[in-house]
Amino acid sequence: MIQKPADYEALTTATIADRLGIVEAVATRLGRDAAKWNAAEIGDGNLNLVFVVKSAEGALVVKQALPYLRVIGESWPLPLKRAFFEYQALVRQKSRAPGFVPEIYHFDESQALIVMEYLADHTILRYKLMAGERVEGLAGAMGRFVAQTAFRGSDLALDIDSRKADTCLFLQNVELCKITESLIFTDPYFPAERNRHTVGLDPVVAMLREDTAMKVRVQHFLAKFAGHAETLLHGDLHSGSIMCTDRATRIIDPEFATYGPMGFDLGMLLANFIMAFFSQPAYRNAHNLQSYQDWICDVIAEIVSTFEKEFARLWKSERTGILYPATLFEDQGQDASVALWEKLQMIWKDAVGFCGIEMHRRILSLAHNADFESIEDPAQRSSLEARSLLMGRDLIMQVESLDDCAQIVEMARDYNRRDCL
Amino acid sequence: MIQKPADYEALTTATIADRLGIVEAVATRLGRDAAKWNAAEIGDGNLNLVFVVKSAEGALVVKQALPYLRVIGESWPLPLKRAFFEYQALVRQKSRAPGFVPEIYHFDESQALIVMEYLADHTILRYKLMAGERVEGLAGAMGRFVAQTAFRGSDLALDIDSRKADTCLFLQNVELCKITESLIFTDPYFPAERNRHTVGLDPVVAMLREDTAMKVRVQHFLAKFAGHAETLLHGDLHSGSIMCTDRATRIIDPEFATYGPMGFDLGMLLANFIMAFFSQPAYRNAHNLQSYQDWICDVIAEIVSTFEKEFARLWKSERTGILYPATLFEDQGQDASVALWEKLQMIWKDAVGFCGIEMHRRILSLAHNADFESIEDPAQRSSLEARSLLMGRDLIMQVESLDDCAQIVEMARDYNRRDCL
Repeated sequence: MIQKPADYEALTTATIADRLGIVEAVATRLGRDAAKWNAAEIGDGNLNLVFVVKSAEGALVVKQALPYLRVIGESWPLPLKRAFFEYQALVRQKSRAPGFVPEIYHFDESQALIVMEYLADHTILRYKLMAGERVEGLAGAMGRFVAQTAFRGSDLALDIDSRKADTCLFLQNVELCKITESLIFTDPYFPAERNRHTVGLDPVVAMLREDTAMKVRVQHFLAKFAGHAETLLHGDLHSGSIMCTDRATRIIDPEFATYGPMGFDLGMLLANFIMAFFSQPAYRNAHNLQSYQDWICDVIAEIVSTFEKEFARLWKSERTGILYPATLFEDQGQDASVALWEKLQMIWKDAVGFCGIEMHRRILSLAHNADFESIEDPAQRSSLEARSLLMGRDLIMQVESLDDCAQIVEMARDYNRRDCL
Repeated sequence: MIQKPADYEALTTATIADRLGIVEAVATRLGRDAAKWNAAEIGDGNLNLVFVVKSAEGALVVKQALPYLRVIGESWPLPLKRAFFEYQALVRQKSRAPGFVPEIYHFDESQALIVMEYLADHTILRYKLMAGERVEGLAGAMGRFVAQTAFRGSDLALDIDSRKADTCLFLQNVELCKITESLIFTDPYFPAERNRHTVGLDPVVAMLREDTAMKVRVQHFLAKFAGHAETLLHGDLHSGSIMCTDRATRIIDPEFATYGPMGFDLGMLLANFIMAFFSQPAYRNAHNLQSYQDWICDVIAEIVSTFEKEFARLWKSERTGILYPATLFEDQGQDASVALWEKLQMIWKDAVGFCGIEMHRRILSLAHNADFESIEDPAQRSSLEARSLLMGRDLIMQVESLDDCAQIVEMARDYNRRDCL
């Protein structure tokens, strides 16, 4: 059932000036004459209303949750409280990974509304990848963002009272997590009502569903996602949650935030780059194809190496939580770097598994990604999607032997040459 | 700082009749003439006041939390709220594992007081083990209790909303968990202020603290304990939390309850039986020693086999949570028993690690156990404790190759013959 506060009302471009004109944080930025503001609705995601409001004096973004899943409609109610969790996540991300998330100007809980920085000249990364555009510093930014949020939101850094209280807060973001739990980890592997896939993929889909051992592994990863509160995750870190200019990178939309395993954000992120890589033959001519795919491979490798370097830096300089305390190692004249190395390996293995699973769900369940979805020829689409499905299975089944990112990149290059249907 | 409600007052044998005479649930059981009640304080644990109150009409137990750690005194404040978590855990254990916990008659949150069933003729299991007494059905009861609480408190059985709300509730039991996190996982491995150990163990203690690789593993297990909310644990499942007659077994004192990894309770439990096993030469003559140690070994093996059988039974009959759903396996004509087998292996490996760690902490940090502590001759005590310390290290370091319980029992029997100092 749709649930909303009595005074909740969805904004429209017609009402936005009246309703936000009285908000000081907005008026300060756009000027007090609300009649001179211009609003446009630009939401292209699956969940919310998003407006850009501009005036001669400035511009800002207004994001408002709807009490249902936008991509489905009122038949799938979704709590407005997700705006609260998004706001709480943005506050934490701002302090844990400074410079990566939009500045927040105003939050109204009963209207499920966040007013935030307008990222002028920024475009959703997914469309840049489809258009063949490069972003300077992208990999470094993403590697640092994931490492900083992972480390600083965990028992490696936080005091245990804060981490547990924070875990408790985000455990209430249960409805959004349910979407992840079913759409990512479960629906792709049985004929769920909202599934769909490209004509031609039936044999691959059947093969995945027959693979009991693989489905068991996917469920082990679901157990980790649902139960292992290692750090505060972004929770939906795909290329549609990243905005870039040609040299700046920002991360948006953390409404799926929850405490979960450190490898989850990293795995989601890698999966979306690998899918962008596989989709390229639909968008590039032969001349540009290879160099752009090479660039994506470089980004993947650099995200992982930056993540590890930044994580190691924080391990050495900010390890103030209860885990692997200096009292047990450095204070006894011992080196804790074996612990760091083992921890990074655990995160990496988890990331590989989550990556493989994400490479299935974007093709098989609800919420496909534009990289594949915009390919008009179903034969071309299915043949590229099949590469992602098969490589996804390999990642899940070969976690133990995939020790570093170069192997993943090599595997993607190999599938990129294969006929998988 | 000591924190307590304004009206909180610790009970005494002198005040207990006046104060509980007005509680209907008590008067019903003991009769309305409170002057005829008899109260005795019997608390021998580290934390609380425990009274047995008897009358001609009946008997009951009154357990009241003190606002500090009893074994240390007012210098170590401890929240009264632990009585609330104990009560909440008892309610859940009663419904998830019927018949194993005392019946609750009354709970008073502001007095941090639980009135419960008096377990007539029951003795703390630890003292029975020291006295060489056998308990019929002990292993079966413990195996079923641990399996039922582990399974039914997890995402294998609960709906996800209930499990997450419940995890959130018990995440607030943060102070008691801190005791576990430091006393079990950290203090034994550095010269913590409250540590002490038997004269003669210095070389073994030094060796453990020099073992960086082992300490790293212990910290991996701490990460699991603190962060992996698999199920509602008892949290302190040693032989002092078990009461028995010669044929009945009950489990008490779950104030350390928290959501944690399924292997934790099982590992604690096994550790305490193994330590009881090692301590036996101090209590038995040669004639009785071997047969009683054999019995303890049988109990250990049967706890694990019963746990696995009961867990498997529940897996087949009560798997209604989000994990390993029938839609992905049985409904597609596939057998999910490989998932069950892998899950049991994961629980077992965790149990082995937690077991090894518990076998250290009871000898090195605060809250030693009576099995070793009551051995008057320090030379004998240290030589038996050394077996526990060295075997504990082997368990932690050999988790990967210790696939079943028979190997653990064999290892204990082997150390039982060794001179370890």
